[in-house]
Amino acid sequence: MTRKIAILGATGSIGKSTLDLIESDPERFEVVAVTAGTNAEALADIVRRTGARLAVIADESRRRDLEELLVGSNCRADAGQAALVEAAGGESDLVIAAIVGCAGLPPVMAAVEAGKTVALANKEALVTAGELMTRSAQANGSTLLPIDSEHNAIFQCLAGARVEHVLRIILTASGGPFRTASAELIASATPAQAVAHPNWTMGAKISVDSATMMNKGLELIEAHYLFGLPSGRIDVLIHPQSVVHSLVEFVDGSVLAQLGSPDMRIPIAYALAWPERISTPAKRLDLAGVGHLDFESPDLSRFPALRLAREALEAGGAAPIVLNAANEVAVASFLAGKLSFPGIAQLVEATLGRCDFAPPASIRDVLEIDRETRLRVGELTAEACQ
Amino acid sequence: MTRKIAILGATGSIGKSTLDLIESDPERFEVVAVTAGTNAEALADIVRRTGARLAVIADESRRRDLEELLVGSNCRADAGQAALVEAAGGESDLVIAAIVGCAGLPPVMAAVEAGKTVALANKEALVTAGELMTRSAQANGSTLLPIDSEHNAIFQCLAGARVEHVLRIILTASGGPFRTASAELIASATPAQAVAHPNWTMGAKISVDSATMMNKGLELIEAHYLFGLPSGRIDVLIHPQSVVHSLVEFVDGSVLAQLGSPDMRIPIAYALAWPERISTPAKRLDLAGVGHLDFESPDLSRFPALRLAREALEAGGAAPIVLNAANEVAVASFLAGKLSFPGIAQLVEATLGRCDFAPPASIRDVLEIDRETRLRVGELTAEACQ
Repeated sequence: MTRKIAILGATGSIGKSTLDLIESDPERFEVVAVTAGTNAEALADIVRRTGARLAVIADESRRRDLEELLVGSNCRADAGQAALVEAAGGESDLVIAAIVGCAGLPPVMAAVEAGKTVALANKEALVTAGELMTRSAQANGSTLLPIDSEHNAIFQCLAGARVEHVLRIILTASGGPFRTASAELIASATPAQAVAHPNWTMGAKISVDSATMMNKGLELIEAHYLFGLPSGRIDVLIHPQSVVHSLVEFVDGSVLAQLGSPDMRIPIAYALAWPERISTPAKRLDLAGVGHLDFESPDLSRFPALRLAREALEAGGAAPIVLNAANEVAVASFLAGKLSFPGIAQLVEATLGRCDFAPPASIRDVLEIDRETRLRVGELTAEACQ
Repeated sequence: MTRKIAILGATGSIGKSTLDLIESDPERFEVVAVTAGTNAEALADIVRRTGARLAVIADESRRRDLEELLVGSNCRADAGQAALVEAAGGESDLVIAAIVGCAGLPPVMAAVEAGKTVALANKEALVTAGELMTRSAQANGSTLLPIDSEHNAIFQCLAGARVEHVLRIILTASGGPFRTASAELIASATPAQAVAHPNWTMGAKISVDSATMMNKGLELIEAHYLFGLPSGRIDVLIHPQSVVHSLVEFVDGSVLAQLGSPDMRIPIAYALAWPERISTPAKRLDLAGVGHLDFESPDLSRFPALRLAREALEAGGAAPIVLNAANEVAVASFLAGKLSFPGIAQLVEATLGRCDFAPPASIRDVLEIDRETRLRVGELTAEACQ
């Protein structure tokens, strides 16, 4: 049976990889809806490639362009937030949620509330609204399939397992470009140094998150909500080669791990086909060629972001939203040359200390706390500059 | 519900570990039958510890001793091959098959024919009678749970997976004490050098098999029958630390691996509790403490036994029986100082070239081919000495 797919964020890198995989197996998949932020031309190209029947551009000002580009096709064009939500909750068996940032929250929630299987590449959904999302998923029979390589690895290791047999999960982290750097070197790190990730080619924001290890901190929070384990049973392990994507330790002493080449098409294919598997063009893992794999404990003194994320997870409520928003603003300041590298974690910690929001009861609350936090980070930055 | 356990080979090292695990969880397990080769005293001790109701000693000459040792207990004493078979096929939910050598074949087959779940620690069952055993298991609804750490690892990686999604399985091998030795050094290897295994404490025979890598060759044959994959889809990977116990590669490029401390209580516990898991006293794996894991391709020129085993697997029929029997005699000759280390593989290869038995149709045939092969190896050795 053909699986009907909606791709939210079809023009981004996850969207592109998803389309490559879908096109290599047209009997199995059918793209029914696609969305993009502002790139109407790329979205129209995707409609022509896939035959999707609904295309939504988030940017209202590009509605007319999209409509014109789709003249003569069988695809309906739409625009704006409400249309995104409609695309997420409408006709489809599987929703690929690959919109970046908090803009992705309402459509992801719509897909979850509609009881869809949701392949989740949007980090913010679980970091900022983990409790709301997972509660709604349970209530509505929605399955969340993580696309992030670490969480996808754990999901694979848990297939056929029972959660009561799990002792802990272990997220691997490359350690980023400053894994072996001294505290002095890290203190003077430049944006160019911070975005030079050793294993994965990624955007600037996530590369900096990898350098501070806030990325792993956010994944810690996601893992908590995805797999229902408390903070104390989620560990982080430095593994510079990024070949072991994560591990699960069971009560009997067995550890299962998922390994592979660093290629996002592997976890995307897993989510697309689950519970089946489909072949991918990803490079096959050659462990003898890799030669050796290294492991070490993370250093919380050089990488305080990891500690902050764990504290935010344990505090719960609005703390992860504040952590995420403060980090985004701080990273932008760092990339703009207005904040030192250690200043990122310091600003996040100061913001966490200043914010005491009530736990969010809705996605609207989450977005409001996110917005409010960004204002307060601005005030803190202004104070620091006086 | 209590699981009723029969332990064939209760006084050996697998039997002892099994008893330790069972005694730590008396609500879950009940030992109903135990067997041993010749050690009636140890067997009687086990009866007193477990309350087993049937005890069988393989050595008929020790029947009276066992009967006297069990006077006043509620345990029936018996002796000989027929009684072993009866213990294997009688009352129990799970049979631990830990008898060493071809002596274990008839009782294992009896357990399989009775449709039992069989936790298999007897290598010969699948190496010499793989086709017969697996066909009978299928016909009788018997489940084979491998206890060998490599096969147990693969079994765990396949839980929740579908065999059509498996691209290949990868057996890890420590490489033994001669992994880095030159061909010249290996040519003059002594028994003392050969039995010094780097990771596991084992008997002399299996230690020599690890040094020649025939052990991995036998496991290759076992894996073929256990998991139903052809020779070309079973690889061997050298991994000196023995932390990754084996791996499964799927069609999408994902690789699942099972890791753990080198402690047989982990796979035994998995087999005992399957599909549940129980806690074990095994040392928890600390990957940061281990630090690094190495991988390399096996060298078939220094370790020809691996090639011979693959050829025997591909030839099928009686070839694996011949391989196994010739190897046992050759290893004994080596340990007795009558054969050089490279002579082991040479003698096995020469024997394979001399034997052309019809495929076995029964366990009786297997035992006959085994016996006949040992005679021919003797002749070959005599010829070589003339």
